[in-house]
Amino acid sequence: MSHFKHHVFFCCNQRAEGESCCANQGAAALRAYAKDKIKALGLNGPGKTRINQAGCLDRCNQGPVLVVYPEAVWYTYVDQEDIDEIIESHLMGGQHVERLKI
Amino acid sequence: MSHFKHHVFFCCNQRAEGESCCANQGAAALRAYAKDKIKALGLNGPGKTRINQAGCLDRCNQGPVLVVYPEAVWYTYVDQEDIDEIIESHLMGGQHVERLKI
Repeated sequence: MSHFKHHVFFCCNQRAEGESCCANQGAAALRAYAKDKIKALGLNGPGKTRINQAGCLDRCNQGPVLVVYPEAVWYTYVDQEDIDEIIESHLMGGQHVERLKI
Repeated sequence: MSHFKHHVFFCCNQRAEGESCCANQGAAALRAYAKDKIKALGLNGPGKTRINQAGCLDRCNQGPVLVVYPEAVWYTYVDQEDIDEIIESHLMGGQHVERLKI
């Protein structure tokens, strides 16, 4: 069994000025939003969910991106509503969010 | 199918002075070693292996730690020989390294 039921990695990579990267598309703020929300819901911790930052996940042209393991589902997202849907549908409900999958 | 066959995350978190953390136990240097070795072996890229840095993976007392997804196998390691064994046995050969598992 996986140490975390859902282990979520947000790419927070900052590339050089002028290059497209997740950090320039709100990744850090939306990761913080997700982390706070998961904690507020009591869903954080071993056997439950972990929200992590990561270096470049190498899918820059589809960014901002996150990946949920061990199910290996990749998403892009734009705003808090997208993050809410990933949390409520996927992490809480087990239903992947097809419209945000990459 | 997973975008990366093996997606490896090294905890590279730096905690405050005096607190045990992966960053104080060689995590960044050994991540760089792993990344360079995977690239030299031609094993990097989609469908193959990705070596990433990550923020705190919340297993500080067992650190330094890394996790390999989607198989969700966690390891601790000490030196380049441990990293070599994880690469050769697990990432190349598909055999988990039992002595380093946490």
